[in-house]
Amino acid sequence: MESPEPTRIMVAVNESSLKGYPHPSISSRSAFIWTIEKIVQTNVTGFKLLFLHAQVPDEDCFDDMDSIYASPQDFNDMNEKDKIRGIHLLEYFVGRCHEIGISCEAWVKKGDPKEVICSEVKRIQPDLLVVGSRGLGPFQRVFVGTVSEFCVKHAECPVITIKRKVDDVPQDPVDD
Amino acid sequence: MESPEPTRIMVAVNESSLKGYPHPSISSRSAFIWTIEKIVQTNVTGFKLLFLHAQVPDEDCFDDMDSIYASPQDFNDMNEKDKIRGIHLLEYFVGRCHEIGISCEAWVKKGDPKEVICSEVKRIQPDLLVVGSRGLGPFQRVFVGTVSEFCVKHAECPVITIKRKVDDVPQDPVDD
Repeated sequence: MESPEPTRIMVAVNESSLKGYPHPSISSRSAFIWTIEKIVQTNVTGFKLLFLHAQVPDEDCFDDMDSIYASPQDFNDMNEKDKIRGIHLLEYFVGRCHEIGISCEAWVKKGDPKEVICSEVKRIQPDLLVVGSRGLGPFQRVFVGTVSEFCVKHAECPVITIKRKVDDVPQDPVDD
Repeated sequence: MESPEPTRIMVAVNESSLKGYPHPSISSRSAFIWTIEKIVQTNVTGFKLLFLHAQVPDEDCFDDMDSIYASPQDFNDMNEKDKIRGIHLLEYFVGRCHEIGISCEAWVKKGDPKEVICSEVKRIQPDLLVVGSRGLGPFQRVFVGTVSEFCVKHAECPVITIKRKVDDVPQDPVDD
């Protein structure tokens, strides 16, 4: 069985809602580790990982700025700052791939995560999309929505959803 | 990265609705081929495939029997016949695995496919479940139901749904 091209796996990652940037969320880290342990294993040349960080635009852009007046330059600075935070998040995954010896690419894209992920799948056409999930119950889901369910339905490639391990679930399961 | 245990992938398979036994459905064959090409590749010792054929109990058990009266023995014979058909279906997949050199197990279980698959996942605890899907639109789905959607929601392991290739879709997409 020859495999001329490596299998391209897109992994959608986000920051921890508890610890913030540059820490990855528990569920993105779980999804990544699962992919390495269960799929890639020692066959590092057979796969390429594509890390997409969909960055939610800040509703209140000036959360952590002292100024109450904002020039266009302030907006630019803010965007730049967000971008850098996103890149720091991706460094975790790129660093781990480097240690393991598997090739990867990583990029940040602003927008609603579920829309961004599906449009990037369309553009990049990976063989597989891996998304982490908090594995919330139906009651919790109503309030927080789930990116993974949307992607399973709408992404134009096979999708696999990896739930956090029970041991990894924080006190409030909505946290990540 | 050491991987002491092979990754156990359960593949749910069924017969072709067009050609009947022992032919596998287009979507089960697609799911199997995808798993080999994109996941297993040349790493045949890293994986074990577990083929489950959930066999729908015949509503009209005596479809292809001449007798209009049935003894309990007739029922036994019928069940035996069904079982043999199921085993012939599995032979396709087991034979292909043998050629490729990947270890596998295969078994038949009677019942509603979506319930059978989820209860076997619970019992066997595979690392991953792969199910084929006809990729029907919402309108067609209402009438035929989809096993894959149920499994994505309810199976207690990561699930991946593989749609048929566009070239493989028969004239009536409900066929398989």
